[in-house]
Amino acid sequence: MLSREEIYRFLIDVVGEDDVSIDVADLFAYSMDASMRISMPAAVARPESREEVAEILKWADEKRVPIVPRGAGTSLSGQAVPVKGGVVLDMCKMDRIKEIDLEDRVAVVEPGVIYDELNRELGKLGYVFPPDPGSAIACTVGGMIANNASGIRALKYGATVDHVLGLEVVLPGGKIIRTGGRVWKSSSGLNLTKLFVGSEGALGVFTEIILKITPKPRYCGLTIPVFQKLEQALEATVEIMRRGILPSAMELIDDICIMIINSVLEEKLPIGEALLFIENDGYSERTVKEESRMVKEICEEKGARKIIYTTDTDRIEELMRLRHTLANMLSKLRGENIPLNNIQDFAVPIGSIPEAVRELKAMAQSHGRLMAIFGHIGDGNIHLGTAINPWKEEDRKAGAEFARRLAEIVVKKYGGTLSAEHGLGVTKASLVELEHGDTIEYMRAIKKVFDPHGIMNPGVMGLLEVPRDEFVYMPTRVAV
Amino acid sequence: MLSREEIYRFLIDVVGEDDVSIDVADLFAYSMDASMRISMPAAVARPESREEVAEILKWADEKRVPIVPRGAGTSLSGQAVPVKGGVVLDMCKMDRIKEIDLEDRVAVVEPGVIYDELNRELGKLGYVFPPDPGSAIACTVGGMIANNASGIRALKYGATVDHVLGLEVVLPGGKIIRTGGRVWKSSSGLNLTKLFVGSEGALGVFTEIILKITPKPRYCGLTIPVFQKLEQALEATVEIMRRGILPSAMELIDDICIMIINSVLEEKLPIGEALLFIENDGYSERTVKEESRMVKEICEEKGARKIIYTTDTDRIEELMRLRHTLANMLSKLRGENIPLNNIQDFAVPIGSIPEAVRELKAMAQSHGRLMAIFGHIGDGNIHLGTAINPWKEEDRKAGAEFARRLAEIVVKKYGGTLSAEHGLGVTKASLVELEHGDTIEYMRAIKKVFDPHGIMNPGVMGLLEVPRDEFVYMPTRVAV
Repeated sequence: MLSREEIYRFLIDVVGEDDVSIDVADLFAYSMDASMRISMPAAVARPESREEVAEILKWADEKRVPIVPRGAGTSLSGQAVPVKGGVVLDMCKMDRIKEIDLEDRVAVVEPGVIYDELNRELGKLGYVFPPDPGSAIACTVGGMIANNASGIRALKYGATVDHVLGLEVVLPGGKIIRTGGRVWKSSSGLNLTKLFVGSEGALGVFTEIILKITPKPRYCGLTIPVFQKLEQALEATVEIMRRGILPSAMELIDDICIMIINSVLEEKLPIGEALLFIENDGYSERTVKEESRMVKEICEEKGARKIIYTTDTDRIEELMRLRHTLANMLSKLRGENIPLNNIQDFAVPIGSIPEAVRELKAMAQSHGRLMAIFGHIGDGNIHLGTAINPWKEEDRKAGAEFARRLAEIVVKKYGGTLSAEHGLGVTKASLVELEHGDTIEYMRAIKKVFDPHGIMNPGVMGLLEVPRDEFVYMPTRVAV
Repeated sequence: MLSREEIYRFLIDVVGEDDVSIDVADLFAYSMDASMRISMPAAVARPESREEVAEILKWADEKRVPIVPRGAGTSLSGQAVPVKGGVVLDMCKMDRIKEIDLEDRVAVVEPGVIYDELNRELGKLGYVFPPDPGSAIACTVGGMIANNASGIRALKYGATVDHVLGLEVVLPGGKIIRTGGRVWKSSSGLNLTKLFVGSEGALGVFTEIILKITPKPRYCGLTIPVFQKLEQALEATVEIMRRGILPSAMELIDDICIMIINSVLEEKLPIGEALLFIENDGYSERTVKEESRMVKEICEEKGARKIIYTTDTDRIEELMRLRHTLANMLSKLRGENIPLNNIQDFAVPIGSIPEAVRELKAMAQSHGRLMAIFGHIGDGNIHLGTAINPWKEEDRKAGAEFARRLAEIVVKKYGGTLSAEHGLGVTKASLVELEHGDTIEYMRAIKKVFDPHGIMNPGVMGLLEVPRDEFVYMPTRVAV
């Protein structure tokens, strides 16, 4: 067992005094992410190069020090919470956009670059990295890759995994490997790139990323149908998909979400049991108009009471921002002053969206719980928000039990997944066998290939053991 | 070491006498695929169920008998050639389409279903499984998944990996696992589904496949610009991609290919140094027209001498069939009566297409070799065809040396890949370190997780050892 002092001295040797901290205020800041979990690391370090990362991972592997790579800490499932203590590697200093190559249509970046900043640079050149997660303003590209993040535009443009062409990864022991490259298509060898995407920091640390970039659509139309019944909105969704239209976004917002938005913001949304935000984009104005027309027609057929339509770019951005900030407003679900909320991130097969939503809603009612329903409904990704006060043990336990009941319905009855885009982290690790059964053993064996001593982000996905779902963890493996 | 008699008796017990053969004529038929390699198995068996596959894999793992799963044997890199002998598992009897669910938009199939047959059934319902490989008429879906096959329509719709949602896989030892499911999007656990896609039968045997299906585009336009210079065609390609147009196909056909097609078929293509077959499709007529107009404009800008355009479905099918059969006609490259040819399957970063093609062509000239250039040029996938007589050792050696020189240019100079869609198999296994360096060690360790005794398709991708590149292999591990 190393003392905190030994850890501190080693890290200073590698990254320099300014980029290490064992100050308790700093450690507290690094003890959490956007999930409702807290666990103190022994130290935090901010490496600046692949070589520094490699040196730290060589040492950590020898000394068996847990390593938790961290982007912006916006992870909703506790992927950046050091539940076994150890060292948090804050990747924020490796934030360079190394190259944007329009000929090859790739961007080469370091993991700490912020999603919106990358898109600002790409946007100047007419390109975009499209997944657009809710945390776009803050999250890092490295974090998105670690969690296979996606968001509003994944329906048409795919999740993060669909845009990653190559990676440089530092493995425990300090070995640096490269996977993939700049080619768009490859059937050469086992696909390690796609294995690393979504590995939640449990296999290694990304130090360079090659992304396929997409020409920015030039035209956009936003259709907002207002439905009296949630059911009608869900049926319109299924029908739009069935007709082969592929909106760039198709977002569901239920009555509770409308109420919250209207109570918080100046902008008032029209009232109904549900709204859809359906965005169609493209490279030709006529194409976008034509698709929007078809969308409008279907929504009318399905009983939309009113339909707002705009092609004004600023207005679309404003309205989509409303949708983006929704998750942050969910703490208003209860009158108390609770800074944290609890958001589920299920996906179900798209044909069962209407039935699954009905059943999940009924479950919430039977538990006497106010539950907001929203999400990227076009690809079956349903977010469910309930407010839980993590400081009250009783509330926490009831919340965990409620989440388990929802997960059982989603996985067992509908063949759904525990996480469409937020990852399992530590908060869903206790449910991992519900979805994966003993296939988890193969995931564990693959982890061992890259991380034989289990130093990388221990706890996530239940890859080492299935961790208890706690609020405050007490790391014991190394000094805190 | 088992005798052939022992192998025969065991297999009869499992699949019944009618579905096992050790007849030398059968074994010879199963000793090859579409590559220029021959190696005799000890026996061939045609299982009918996951349980039969599991029983065989349990026995094979205990007795260390090599197992080579086989679809239609259309693999171009020797993935179905039993280079270490053993048992070929012909999956042709597991060819059921179990379910087409339009609500969830998935098809559940067995591995032996033929690509075109699946699409015939899907087509009746207005859907398609789009990758469209050259072997579409014969190849099986299981084989496509094993090789992450793609083809003409991968540019817009993605390779096979982009359409596989879930798998049932039988592993050595007989364990049956399931990965993924019917959901479109998941960030739950390590992505085993995408790891199995492209694993070339080296990890396990697929027994059930869940595919995401795509609504069939209703309108289509085919633009065929004729260019005086190959260079102009390549520049048009780069420009079309840069403008954000996404054709459903963008195929290059060079002058040698035009000559071959014109000499073999009644259909005569216009003469030039290169043609492009650019197909635009969609769900709205206006959209397709608009995109075709933009494509035409760009081709004219880049100097197309003549442009053929048609929206007639039958005519488009005819013309695309010409492109499809091209690979089969390449044996005409030499006057001799050689039934086999040699097709390279590189991909390079799209920005370097013009330069890479120029250099590869110069290399062929300096070797005094007639080389046809064609392929899915939109995503950087370049096929190079030269005729090699496998029965002449000298010719074979020179061909292998030439292939290595091409590969060195593609990988080392342009950062390209050895295989965009055909897989490495055994024919490119000797080059594996050229592209992957020592990252191959991690692929080998992952193979060990699923196949600890190395019985699954030994030889492919160099996952056990780097096999010599032979024409006729002499398996020695089990009786032949």
